[in-house]
Amino acid sequence: MADVHRVCRRYHAAIELIGARWSGAILRVLFTGRHRYAQIKAAVPGLSDTMLAERLRSLEADGLIERRVIPSSPVQVEYHLTDKGRDLEPVLDAVISWAHKWIELPDDAHAPAG
Amino acid sequence: MADVHRVCRRYHAAIELIGARWSGAILRVLFTGRHRYAQIKAAVPGLSDTMLAERLRSLEADGLIERRVIPSSPVQVEYHLTDKGRDLEPVLDAVISWAHKWIELPDDAHAPAG
Repeated sequence: MADVHRVCRRYHAAIELIGARWSGAILRVLFTGRHRYAQIKAAVPGLSDTMLAERLRSLEADGLIERRVIPSSPVQVEYHLTDKGRDLEPVLDAVISWAHKWIELPDDAHAPAG
Repeated sequence: MADVHRVCRRYHAAIELIGARWSGAILRVLFTGRHRYAQIKAAVPGLSDTMLAERLRSLEADGLIERRVIPSSPVQVEYHLTDKGRDLEPVLDAVISWAHKWIELPDDAHAPAG
């Protein structure tokens, strides 16, 4: 029986930060560029307004994304990744490769580009 | 404003499978070898019996881990990664690298080896 190491708390905090429900999907959207609230919501099927607002707040509090207020009329708010957020690219790329190899979609689904 | 792609459902399913609360930590433990229930629990501070049992069942149902019954007396049950589970290594490695760069631990914590 192999010896047991206590799980690294940094790793544990990170995987649950990224893996929190909807957070991974929102981060994925922001890897395609700056987006406004409505655009992010449109890109993630099933995501409610309440959950999106909550996740954007926590991702911002965790320093992974930033919001920019555009002083147009009406005012608009845009979200983008920080350096800390962009540094997750190798993680998302590894998840995409694994997902395309191992995750099967229900027959009715057409899988949009990764 | 960049165009918005719908998030790939395979990616979305995968990141939430791996990132589900406690699952990432349990997977991390099993990357150090086969382990029994009590060893996994000892390696993940704060993990309750109920949650560990539930997560082991769902990780098994998702094909990431397998259980082996050892016909000793008393009977023992051992868990190990499947090929599908082991293929997550690049994901966990990428998370560990990111975590060591960006995640700060509260001062009182001593971070065990990743």
